Amino acid sequence: MPRIAVVPGSFDPVTLGHLDVVARAARIFDEVHVVVTHNPDKHAFLPVVEREALIERSIEEARIEGQIRIANWSMGLLVDYCQQVGAEVLVKGIRSSTDLSYETPMSIVNRNLAGVETIFMLPNPENAHVSSSLVRQVSELGGDISPYVPRAVATFLQSR
Amino acid sequence: MPRIAVVPGSFDPVTLGHLDVVARAARIFDEVHVVVTHNPDKHAFLPVVEREALIERSIEEARIEGQIRIANWSMGLLVDYCQQVGAEVLVKGIRSSTDLSYETPMSIVNRNLAGVETIFMLPNPENAHVSSSLVRQVSELGGDISPYVPRAVATFLQSR
Amino acid sequence: MPRIAVVPGSFDPVTLGHLDVVARAARIFDEVHVVVTHNPDKHAFLPVVEREALIERSIEEARIEGQIRIANWSMGLLVDYCQQVGAEVLVKGIRSSTDLSYETPMSIVNRNLAGVETIFMLPNPENAHVSSSLVRQVSELGGDISPYVPRAVATFLQSR
Amino acid sequence: MPRIAVVPGSFDPVTLGHLDVVARAARIFDEVHVVVTHNPDKHAFLPVVEREALIERSIEEARIEGQIRIANWSMGLLVDYCQQVGAEVLVKGIRSSTDLSYETPMSIVNRNLAGVETIFMLPNPENAHVSSSLVRQVSELGGDISPYVPRAVATFLQSR
Amino acid sequence: MPRIAVVPGSFDPVTLGHLDVVARAARIFDEVHVVVTHNPDKHAFLPVVEREALIERSIEEARIEGQIRIANWSMGLLVDYCQQVGAEVLVKGIRSSTDLSYETPMSIVNRNLAGVETIFMLPNPENAHVSSSLVRQVSELGGDISPYVPRAVATFLQSR
Amino acid sequence: MPRIAVVPGSFDPVTLGHLDVVARAARIFDEVHVVVTHNPDKHAFLPVVEREALIERSIEEARIEGQIRIANWSMGLLVDYCQQVGAEVLVKGIRSSTDLSYETPMSIVNRNLAGVETIFMLPNPENAHVSSSLVRQVSELGGDISPYVPRAVATFLQSR
Repeated sequence: MPRIAVVPGSFDPVTLGHLDVVARAARIFDEVHVVVTHNPDKHAFLPVVEREALIERSIEEARIEGQIRIANWSMGLLVDYCQQVGAEVLVKGIRSSTDLSYETPMSIVNRNLAGVETIFMLPNPENAHVSSSLVRQVSELGGDISPYVPRAVATFLQSR
Repeated sequence: MPRIAVVPGSFDPVTLGHLDVVARAARIFDEVHVVVTHNPDKHAFLPVVEREALIERSIEEARIEGQIRIANWSMGLLVDYCQQVGAEVLVKGIRSSTDLSYETPMSIVNRNLAGVETIFMLPNPENAHVSSSLVRQVSELGGDISPYVPRAVATFLQSR
Repeated sequence: MPRIAVVPGSFDPVTLGHLDVVARAARIFDEVHVVVTHNPDKHAFLPVVEREALIERSIEEARIEGQIRIANWSMGLLVDYCQQVGAEVLVKGIRSSTDLSYETPMSIVNRNLAGVETIFMLPNPENAHVSSSLVRQVSELGGDISPYVPRAVATFLQSR
Repeated sequence: MPRIAVVPGSFDPVTLGHLDVVARAARIFDEVHVVVTHNPDKHAFLPVVEREALIERSIEEARIEGQIRIANWSMGLLVDYCQQVGAEVLVKGIRSSTDLSYETPMSIVNRNLAGVETIFMLPNPENAHVSSSLVRQVSELGGDISPYVPRAVATFLQSR
Repeated sequence: MPRIAVVPGSFDPVTLGHLDVVARAARIFDEVHVVVTHNPDKHAFLPVVEREALIERSIEEARIEGQIRIANWSMGLLVDYCQQVGAEVLVKGIRSSTDLSYETPMSIVNRNLAGVETIFMLPNPENAHVSSSLVRQVSELGGDISPYVPRAVATFLQSR
Repeated sequence: MPRIAVVPGSFDPVTLGHLDVVARAARIFDEVHVVVTHNPDKHAFLPVVEREALIERSIEEARIEGQIRIANWSMGLLVDYCQQVGAEVLVKGIRSSTDLSYETPMSIVNRNLAGVETIFMLPNPENAHVSSSLVRQVSELGGDISPYVPRAVATFLQSR
């Protein structure tokens, strides 16, 4: 039975930090699902379909090896997605102790609700300060975001 | 003169973590006031009157002993309530260092403004990740919230 | 060539903690620019012009020595302002590790984008819990904010 | 039945931060025991008898009101002392989130072992950086420790 | 090729928190090596052979399923062990942000030196405060350590 | 009057993180003193004279521009050194919130004792996990430390 891991996130947009965690997860698990979670009632920076396309192009561009699928999820608890595809593990990149504090409660809930385990991985130190919200902020102020995102994302944002 | 402590919170809804702190406070102080603070201008999950009723039922259900009163407060600084009822101590449950950082500034202000002291207590470790916002989130996504709230709250939320 | 430092912030309103950091920066650098950053699309407590006037009066009142200029900035990245005036350093007061975590990502971006360095300074311990948001909160609830702000700010807020 | 609280510490030496917490505890509880814990096998800065004497003189000097007793304890778990004197509460001053993390495990153990509750209090912000180890370090390097300790301690250390 | 994970630690002695992490790792990986790291020059609480025996008995007692091996390592970098047995992943239980900060530097080094990835897992919340050093401390003071350790460890320590 | 800053540390040995902070300080201040602090009673990894030589060679190797002096100090408070050379600022690199907490108390003392201000700077993110103690640990276990230290240090340690 293949070991399937889910890497969830809003990926709005995907960053080099995200991509780094996906690549690391793909070396540990037989199959990795990158799942764009979104709340249809909330305003977002990019539409979900765009976010998925950028993840796909970024993974190709970075030549990340392994079985990787891209999906989105807005229909309820993330563990429902996990159970649907047979995934027993969630993978979260954490950049700091603030991230860990933020992720801890839901990871305990996911374990209680469905026996889905969360494992935490560290991105490369040079990406430790990179987040989607930082990229959005710099992009909206007209700054250069190319050091923080895959080339596909930089090209896309500059063309907007 | 009886020692009166105030346990403030939005209690939207009350959790097992809150209840645990109320029970611990009731063993230390002669009288404990559980005070639902609310801002009439902000959207809430449950109406104040419902929150108070759920606290009352939960305290009965848990057979917490001691002199416990339930009140609500939206008319200004919490220390005004304290002075009105003769309370000299605020009790806050803290689950983590993030909670402590968040509570510190207002606790210094309350000391400066009115000589009201804040003491911090730890909930049971098994409730250390439980918060009202986690309960609301899981409840809205259709997950089982019964491990985190008193039975009265679980019943009420499921019947909505 | 004079060493110019920029002390940015929303200063909504300026507090004794801010003023303390400005005074310390003015002892280290030849020229200090206190820059009110603001987003015209977001609701603020005080108009920018009022915030600048209060900073000016507070600096006079505290008799802070040194070359100090007051400006505002809403037109993009703060490093554009720095480059415009020839400043190579941003100065941020940090009251806690939470502040440091919050400031770190943008400080790395500012270094990458324009070679502008951020240095962090600690306010006096007695101001370590004071923030503009605390002042706004206490002020709106009718509490006494005079221990936390320059006299000019206290007078102004009481007269509103 | 009087409410008794124990304020434990190595108090090597007592600082203004410690004294502040003792004074606050004395306003909340009917009786406060300041208990010098020590490990006879470990090297200390001051002998226990000296530490107790300095606490006593400092409390007199600060005119702290309330029922305060000074004791020492090296014979086992601190909760044994609590049970011996009928104390149900330990009071710990915490200056930061690091302090809280450090105190949490033993506070849970004390609760499990003997039902003794730990409450955490914040010292005055101006003492938030003061610790016995800082005082020892500055004292050994020949610096002025008088801003951090009661006069009795400063006099004693200068006379050594 | 089987996925092998190493769970390193001093396990002096093994706690319920450790055991919990081992069980979770055993559900994710094909093979788990519990590796007692030790420095022959440093004083320890229990001899390595005893620590290994207690881990073995505890794993049996808890009926943890999966391929689990127990080993010890004192001959150099832990990644040398990993390479020797073909393990690509280290698993560390983290109880708090302090643990994460402590583990981060060596995890980056292990990645750099040998491409060995570290993943972090959370123990059950009720074990979040349990550590070997806490168990040693309570044990040496004569307190009851049975809530924190496997039965085999409690029996062994009480018989000493 | 030139602006002089002191960058203190044990530098046992100097790392790429240290060097990065020295280079940044040299761009802000007219003169930078890199001061090796040491306690003659404590065991060290490298003798002070060796540490100073390695700093000197590393600064040359990295072609750091600016007025940089190298000194050592073991005779008392660091602020005595500052006053002797006319420095008004200490510069500390902080890699994390743990570093900040650790440095805060002494920085307040240095301000109180002698009006010497401490400013905190962030090293490059890729060096955020590098410390002298990590380098010593990896070096003693026989691992490759060249990614973390200047070439001069790597050569020196390998030749030992």
